[in-house]
Amino acid sequence: MQLPTPVLRPPFNITRASHVVLTAADLTASRRFYEQVIGLVLTAEADGTLYYRGIEEACHHSLVLHQAGGAPACRRIGLRMLGDEDLEVAFASFRQQGCAPAWVEVPFQGRTLHVTDPVGTPLEFCARMPVAPRQITNFASHRGGCAQRIDHCQILVPQVPRALDFYSAMGFRLSEYIATDDDQLRGVFLQRKGNPHDIVFFHGAGPRLHHTAFFTPEAQHLLKACDVAGSLGYGRTVERGPGRHGPGHAMFVYFRDPDGHRIELFNTHYQAIDIENEPVRWDVKDPNVSFPWGLPAQRRWFEEATAFEGVAIKEAEPKPKPMTLERFLADQAERK
Amino acid sequence: MQLPTPVLRPPFNITRASHVVLTAADLTASRRFYEQVIGLVLTAEADGTLYYRGIEEACHHSLVLHQAGGAPACRRIGLRMLGDEDLEVAFASFRQQGCAPAWVEVPFQGRTLHVTDPVGTPLEFCARMPVAPRQITNFASHRGGCAQRIDHCQILVPQVPRALDFYSAMGFRLSEYIATDDDQLRGVFLQRKGNPHDIVFFHGAGPRLHHTAFFTPEAQHLLKACDVAGSLGYGRTVERGPGRHGPGHAMFVYFRDPDGHRIELFNTHYQAIDIENEPVRWDVKDPNVSFPWGLPAQRRWFEEATAFEGVAIKEAEPKPKPMTLERFLADQAERK
Amino acid sequence: MQLPTPVLRPPFNITRASHVVLTAADLTASRRFYEQVIGLVLTAEADGTLYYRGIEEACHHSLVLHQAGGAPACRRIGLRMLGDEDLEVAFASFRQQGCAPAWVEVPFQGRTLHVTDPVGTPLEFCARMPVAPRQITNFASHRGGCAQRIDHCQILVPQVPRALDFYSAMGFRLSEYIATDDDQLRGVFLQRKGNPHDIVFFHGAGPRLHHTAFFTPEAQHLLKACDVAGSLGYGRTVERGPGRHGPGHAMFVYFRDPDGHRIELFNTHYQAIDIENEPVRWDVKDPNVSFPWGLPAQRRWFEEATAFEGVAIKEAEPKPKPMTLERFLADQAERK
Amino acid sequence: MQLPTPVLRPPFNITRASHVVLTAADLTASRRFYEQVIGLVLTAEADGTLYYRGIEEACHHSLVLHQAGGAPACRRIGLRMLGDEDLEVAFASFRQQGCAPAWVEVPFQGRTLHVTDPVGTPLEFCARMPVAPRQITNFASHRGGCAQRIDHCQILVPQVPRALDFYSAMGFRLSEYIATDDDQLRGVFLQRKGNPHDIVFFHGAGPRLHHTAFFTPEAQHLLKACDVAGSLGYGRTVERGPGRHGPGHAMFVYFRDPDGHRIELFNTHYQAIDIENEPVRWDVKDPNVSFPWGLPAQRRWFEEATAFEGVAIKEAEPKPKPMTLERFLADQAERK
Repeated sequence: MQLPTPVLRPPFNITRASHVVLTAADLTASRRFYEQVIGLVLTAEADGTLYYRGIEEACHHSLVLHQAGGAPACRRIGLRMLGDEDLEVAFASFRQQGCAPAWVEVPFQGRTLHVTDPVGTPLEFCARMPVAPRQITNFASHRGGCAQRIDHCQILVPQVPRALDFYSAMGFRLSEYIATDDDQLRGVFLQRKGNPHDIVFFHGAGPRLHHTAFFTPEAQHLLKACDVAGSLGYGRTVERGPGRHGPGHAMFVYFRDPDGHRIELFNTHYQAIDIENEPVRWDVKDPNVSFPWGLPAQRRWFEEATAFEGVAIKEAEPKPKPMTLERFLADQAERK
Repeated sequence: MQLPTPVLRPPFNITRASHVVLTAADLTASRRFYEQVIGLVLTAEADGTLYYRGIEEACHHSLVLHQAGGAPACRRIGLRMLGDEDLEVAFASFRQQGCAPAWVEVPFQGRTLHVTDPVGTPLEFCARMPVAPRQITNFASHRGGCAQRIDHCQILVPQVPRALDFYSAMGFRLSEYIATDDDQLRGVFLQRKGNPHDIVFFHGAGPRLHHTAFFTPEAQHLLKACDVAGSLGYGRTVERGPGRHGPGHAMFVYFRDPDGHRIELFNTHYQAIDIENEPVRWDVKDPNVSFPWGLPAQRRWFEEATAFEGVAIKEAEPKPKPMTLERFLADQAERK
Repeated sequence: MQLPTPVLRPPFNITRASHVVLTAADLTASRRFYEQVIGLVLTAEADGTLYYRGIEEACHHSLVLHQAGGAPACRRIGLRMLGDEDLEVAFASFRQQGCAPAWVEVPFQGRTLHVTDPVGTPLEFCARMPVAPRQITNFASHRGGCAQRIDHCQILVPQVPRALDFYSAMGFRLSEYIATDDDQLRGVFLQRKGNPHDIVFFHGAGPRLHHTAFFTPEAQHLLKACDVAGSLGYGRTVERGPGRHGPGHAMFVYFRDPDGHRIELFNTHYQAIDIENEPVRWDVKDPNVSFPWGLPAQRRWFEEATAFEGVAIKEAEPKPKPMTLERFLADQAERK
Repeated sequence: MQLPTPVLRPPFNITRASHVVLTAADLTASRRFYEQVIGLVLTAEADGTLYYRGIEEACHHSLVLHQAGGAPACRRIGLRMLGDEDLEVAFASFRQQGCAPAWVEVPFQGRTLHVTDPVGTPLEFCARMPVAPRQITNFASHRGGCAQRIDHCQILVPQVPRALDFYSAMGFRLSEYIATDDDQLRGVFLQRKGNPHDIVFFHGAGPRLHHTAFFTPEAQHLLKACDVAGSLGYGRTVERGPGRHGPGHAMFVYFRDPDGHRIELFNTHYQAIDIENEPVRWDVKDPNVSFPWGLPAQRRWFEEATAFEGVAIKEAEPKPKPMTLERFLADQAERK
């Protein structure tokens, strides 16, 4: 199967997944969920906006919630560049590629560049944020899932190969991927920061934000998040897990926040720095890809996702036919 | 609701759940599963029989697997009495109650008494077993779920109140129970050993053994058992969980062994010794009873169970209508 | 070695370690320590007294702190009996043995019996307390070490054999013990509740309360308690551990509370119900008894303890010569 | 305090700590320790040499043990470069700096460059190794501490500022450092891979290898390593911990391998990619630097280290006067 050649010395240096910008109908409800269940740290509340960061993060925010009515939406996926000079170089490159780059002012961020990638994802890049003290050793303050830092976003798009090409050219490296027997890409895990993913694209109607993932220190924190969710009346927000991923190898749990945005907590990344490691290929038909043990995800986990504000959604061709929990149970009943 | 008065000074002293005796079609397959995934310790293999104990157990066995063809079955539920003199007193009592007591010889057990309880469960009582060194500090040998000791059995029967009366009269105390709005008992958690349960009865076609539960030290061991299951090809044997119980408060995971017998691993019991604590009543309709967070158990978890060898199964009236995973997903799809 | 014959059917039924009553100079300081670091739940504050219970405990209190000046002291070790009728039978027995039994009124306890055991320990027995909801599933409220329930007290006395005889006659069973080559008892672990200890006596100047132990669900909670201690300025109160016990097999950590009372958090008990298990003998010279790995406890852990209010302290003969951390380091330096 | 300006775009790309090469007197003893206690995976045994990697590592080795008599020694500290072209650029740079670069053949490594840094540390750089399957999801095979990957080496040298200058110029970034009131550097944590350290230099007689650190997934694995050590007769090899670091924030435990080489297991790194974070300064006198809770390290932890083969050791000026456990206990005794 033909995969892009890794670009090891890209012209500008994207360093990592940085933040996501979501809308929320009721910030009070959001606060209770994100602070008690997920365990994020509130850096600032200003102008109808909540700025959160993980317990280890010194940067100002990795999750931004704007109070807004209407359908819940994602406004931007944020990525970091190393320095402002990288932004400059990137601007030119994006203009050349027709990505409509624009310099914008964003509170609590350094110079910020807005771009739309070829599959329609609204991105924003910056290289600096104000810093706040890491709370990682403020143990008495840790709550729920102790979300430590943002790790990655997963996005559904109808054109996975196009996303792969675009991000590969910017220096993203492919750690793992999922493909059909006839080499149709169904999922790509792309990374800059040295472990398996910063941004992930899966085949589906899109572009839509499937989930935002925060890293937690240990599996116990996944369980704690679930237990706190249950005891605070958020028991039904646990949409999937705890379980073990095939690709990426992490233990995970997926929540739906009060607006329905999907949040993953997971742990146990491996390091992905060396270039002699080939991307790992997973067979889309192998149940161990979706669920090495236990049960697969329910249909809504596969199908529901957050729209990007003002971005039209295109259907995927062919339509995804994942092994949903519903199908798994029906197959099992039939076999009996 | 009228519950039996606790019998605090019963005429004979049953101390705890002791062991279960199951049939197995292929002892090699059973060994791999129980030693690698569940983490039990093989005390002896003799005459087509495997004798297992938990890593902390000094007694000879808490799980007995007899090689046997035909439908998988449970032969006996074992309970411990304190001393042989308790067995003597019990014999007379059981005869008076028409439980057909009989003295039998059982390998690796002291004097043993066979009895059938009024709901048809074949029991065996003994007061002594040979001892073997506890393996609890033999850390290098611990595997999979590190099953520490047997904790309880759960049995499906059509007449839960009758079971409650019988076991209460023997000094079992009711820690928690599940009832309908019109006070029909649907589940009773009965205990002798000072924490929530030694034997549990739930409403359903029976008598059938729903599951045997082993205590594990920590939640991490539940996860480890699942992960080992997945890596050894037993991923589909994880039937339910990991999740959190409402009643009993424990974190759990349910496996199906190679013969389909259901094994629970769970942790975090509370102590139940004081008599001023009333039994806790749970509402059968409350979803938090079955699943404080996440998804309910699939139908087969509710409906499938192990028959007792040679014991006829009676239907339950009314037929149980639990909130199964299948029903939950259908209801959810409908609401949309 | 001659050990007392277990009394399996004692005339009255002591069920478990119940509570300790300590003095505290500054209740504000005590609250911060016990609630944040140890994770106990405040049931009531009344008349200069704090009443705490563990997160799983329904009984009113397992730790009582009386505001009092002067040297920190322990006022009583509390033990539970099953019912009030046990107290009646016990009264007569204690009077016969010259233990000066007296009925007293104690807030938030049923009828209470004060007794002094033959080695000078001031005990109190009761069979009932008011109940409060267990907090075990109130996950959002859990803090620090999540102390789940009281487990045992350890007491230093010059006459360990005399304590063993007295408690054995009341039905306490010896789970483990430590003895010299010439069969001098140096420590006895005595239990009623079905796991290794409710009350422990070690050879030393006394009677003095060496420590009170609370059970925690998992090893992670021991570490969390230490980390919270460190982040709140209590880092120097971690006197020993985390480490692994030889006897009892638990993982532990010892704290000194703001008044210097020693509190142990530990996990992973084994069950000790069957009578065919002989008490385990440990060799006083074996380093694995005190420290299966790592370093031994510092001298003050061995030597410092809380006096019982108004009770004279007698020296131990011979004086204990434990392998202290100080001695271990000196020996090691010498060997080099 | 004057610190080097970070070199964000160095001429060649060192990516991470790669491996260490140690001598061992008895490979059988080494195997038992590293496989059972530390939990490393043996990739190959050839020509009197053991090649180990962590459970997540795909690269051939991160620990190399050469059978050799005489005093235990470290032969090389291995660092990775991104590609072979980086090695070429580096060669020229090292020659210019007088680091005696030399191309060498090393089994199971790509082209390898030997260099001696200005403080005397024998380094080796390579950009490729053969790969082997990651064992991270082979859960049934995990043992002891489940060492996941090499993380960093710590080296004692008399000239910390000189090391800082040299490594900073190569693009290493300073995450944290320890300094005296008069700005004398006592420790520098230097990193390339995006978390706090790849190589650490502390003030002391040197150059000597203080320890090699492997990352473990969770704190439970540190405890498991200790417990396995204890149960296999390695209890005295636990030299320090488990405890919590001030700098770096990780939980740790230090072992001494059968040859006396010091191995750290630790967990919970934070991400250190953004450039707006200033290096964190720690006060050398603050006890929370060495031990946020509990007791400080014993003297031998500070003073003993592994010599580099054939490299002369220079005394440090001034001589380090750390707060050792011995001094802490003496001070405490005096205060009483």
